[in-house]
Amino acid sequence: MPNAHEYTTAHGAEFEAQLKDLIRIPSISTLPERKTDVEKAAEWVADDFRRMGFEKVEILPTGGHPVVYAEWMGAGESARTVLIYGHYDVQPAVTTDGWDSDPFEPVVRDGKLFARGSSDDKGQVFAQMKAAEALLANGGKAPVNLKFLVEGEEEIGSPHLGKFVAANRDKLSADVCVISDSGMVTIDQPVIDYSTRGLMYLDFEITGPKQDLHSGGYGGIVHNPAQALAEILAQLHNPDGSVNVPGFYDDVLLLDDKERAELQKSAPTEAEYQETTGVPAFWGEAGYALHERIGARPTLEINGFVSGFYGAGSKTVLPAKALAKISCRLVANQDPNKIFELVKAQLIRLTPATIRSEVRAQALAYPAVMDLKSQAMQAAIEAYEKGWGKRPVFERGGGTLPILADFQRHLNNIPIVLMGFGLFGDGAHGPNESFTLEMFHRGIQTAIHFHEAIAAL
Amino acid sequence: MPNAHEYTTAHGAEFEAQLKDLIRIPSISTLPERKTDVEKAAEWVADDFRRMGFEKVEILPTGGHPVVYAEWMGAGESARTVLIYGHYDVQPAVTTDGWDSDPFEPVVRDGKLFARGSSDDKGQVFAQMKAAEALLANGGKAPVNLKFLVEGEEEIGSPHLGKFVAANRDKLSADVCVISDSGMVTIDQPVIDYSTRGLMYLDFEITGPKQDLHSGGYGGIVHNPAQALAEILAQLHNPDGSVNVPGFYDDVLLLDDKERAELQKSAPTEAEYQETTGVPAFWGEAGYALHERIGARPTLEINGFVSGFYGAGSKTVLPAKALAKISCRLVANQDPNKIFELVKAQLIRLTPATIRSEVRAQALAYPAVMDLKSQAMQAAIEAYEKGWGKRPVFERGGGTLPILADFQRHLNNIPIVLMGFGLFGDGAHGPNESFTLEMFHRGIQTAIHFHEAIAAL
Repeated sequence: MPNAHEYTTAHGAEFEAQLKDLIRIPSISTLPERKTDVEKAAEWVADDFRRMGFEKVEILPTGGHPVVYAEWMGAGESARTVLIYGHYDVQPAVTTDGWDSDPFEPVVRDGKLFARGSSDDKGQVFAQMKAAEALLANGGKAPVNLKFLVEGEEEIGSPHLGKFVAANRDKLSADVCVISDSGMVTIDQPVIDYSTRGLMYLDFEITGPKQDLHSGGYGGIVHNPAQALAEILAQLHNPDGSVNVPGFYDDVLLLDDKERAELQKSAPTEAEYQETTGVPAFWGEAGYALHERIGARPTLEINGFVSGFYGAGSKTVLPAKALAKISCRLVANQDPNKIFELVKAQLIRLTPATIRSEVRAQALAYPAVMDLKSQAMQAAIEAYEKGWGKRPVFERGGGTLPILADFQRHLNNIPIVLMGFGLFGDGAHGPNESFTLEMFHRGIQTAIHFHEAIAAL
Repeated sequence: MPNAHEYTTAHGAEFEAQLKDLIRIPSISTLPERKTDVEKAAEWVADDFRRMGFEKVEILPTGGHPVVYAEWMGAGESARTVLIYGHYDVQPAVTTDGWDSDPFEPVVRDGKLFARGSSDDKGQVFAQMKAAEALLANGGKAPVNLKFLVEGEEEIGSPHLGKFVAANRDKLSADVCVISDSGMVTIDQPVIDYSTRGLMYLDFEITGPKQDLHSGGYGGIVHNPAQALAEILAQLHNPDGSVNVPGFYDDVLLLDDKERAELQKSAPTEAEYQETTGVPAFWGEAGYALHERIGARPTLEINGFVSGFYGAGSKTVLPAKALAKISCRLVANQDPNKIFELVKAQLIRLTPATIRSEVRAQALAYPAVMDLKSQAMQAAIEAYEKGWGKRPVFERGGGTLPILADFQRHLNNIPIVLMGFGLFGDGAHGPNESFTLEMFHRGIQTAIHFHEAIAAL
């Protein structure tokens, strides 16, 4: 009988085909019209766990999209238990956003699988699922007990998962938690993120006249809502690139010199950032290196806005409304609820008497920092050395995993390891998202090594 | 045989039904997918002229949508000739813009006809057409020769009509030109606009990263294009409400005290402006009254903008692009070409090194001022006194009729009269555009009186 590693090698093509099936389900959690697809993806994932031999597989309701819970406790009470978290939902994507092919019909070019969710997070969580399959296929025996929690609301800020975790502490109890939903700069150098940023996302809507007006008939006496929105948004950053919200930085944990020096080792170069962004010049908060601005500093972004007419040609309308989607990435020890109140207060303060404005919270998530010295982290280092052939470096990630802070809080401060199998240039959340298939296969092997290392602790 | 006024009274319901048919054709000139509907509207108008008994009816090509030309010269060489201009194209409209009913299925509520184009300009040009029908129905005799020029590109700035007029000077030669495409504050007080504003419309597009990015992965090092656009747009007005474009006001003809005093007589009150706009407070250029800001001062408006994600929910994208539609309303003696260059130069000057920007002209139109002392203007005063029962007041209009300056230039400085039958609250260009049917019927009678007064000069 082949061991788990041999099984993985033998079934590589089959795993890829399965992943494509999962990707074809457009499980876009933020779009109400995709609710059925989100449910379909949950069922697909649950079915795959059943097929692998998991003893208990459940699709559990939350206040929103369901979670898939799968459990295999066959390693016995004395063995360690690993909790694996991931998400089956994806960001929105339409071909006209700039995709070279249908975002929900995966295609392989140059060893990369192009599709929405290929890297974030279907491809990565599926690598963990296939590692479990390989361990169980090995005579139905894995060296550790396995609990999977695969949710469907990560891309909308996991609004219901915190409550779910709090209500299911026993079910989810484990010795270590591993998450594959992050990445590394190049395939040659594995990276472990040891912190993630929090998130505060809000809608800011401005209303001027009671309806769209003729710009000739009223232009000049009405504070144009598009103009007013621009004037307010323009005041949210200071000339030095810092965020102009009173109190915004009050709780930020500053980097010390030692950590800055350590982070410098894993930092992408300017040329690497240039390659993936293509911007004419970088921008940002003065006094911090590029990787520090992303991983260790909070930011405020305009994720989009809309007002009036924006089609081809000309429509001389004076719009009645303007909407901006604004979000902040937060770092330890910022509280997303407090930041929401601060940004809201600033937006209201900046609203002139000529217009009306409204602020609505959309998503809130805490930042998290993980213990670099935990036994779990040592097992991850060993797994990468075996699965990747190289010792990982450590960095602070810029993204958000809303659930980390909840796991730490509700699961007895469980050690968490982020074993990301994505690449810096995957284009998560953008058009032409991709997942390098070599990363997928190495990821499965590394995940198996991790479980073996945890068992051997 | 009834006279033209009696004919009009007898056929009022029929005229309304015909107008509804014309309105049902969604002749939106700015949308390429509506080209066939625009042509259909031109044919509808031409057919109606043929039915009325016009001798020559032509649908003539331009570089864009065609013009309808209709001629009746039966009054003879010694009689005066009146050129009537209007447009059969309309602004875009979809129900989701805030319409209470389908914008292209006219409905009557409280004596108002609700539909796109009901007032601007189908309803008004149709009032002129029905006045001609009434005069011709009167034994096939009208007291003046009639030439109609009904175009299909007014709502996109009449890009081809100037050239058409220059190439058809003889065909269009007339003693006076009358246009019904403006309005009055209340039905009780007719108004003659004696100036119109020019227009300069452009697209301003910003590009940052080469594609949409994950706001967590790159937020903080890339100058967000939505933010950059807001920062630039916010600099286009000074704190006193004036436009911050060097040279913008250089050629503006200032109002003298006498004209200001005269204009004050026809000015809507703050309460009237408040009623139609519903804004919490007015805004605009310091030192000028509300009606002066609209009619006598140039403005810069953001007609709309778009960037990134603006749907329901949250998408943590860092957008690659941002687009704004910007227009200026111009007054005598501003040149739209020069203003385009000035605004473009300022936009480029305000573009930081962190992003790329592009400026594209969309539409240009000259402002125009008409002679208050012309004989044609005296005929219009007489027509309103008879058709409306009240002497009109005079005002400077805020809108743009791109063709006015071309008529003046190419047609031997022809006297022009703007006899608008719209109302201040019609909501032209916005949702729930309406046309008060009483205005329609009075308009037809007044247009007949105008032709009779011109004949009697």
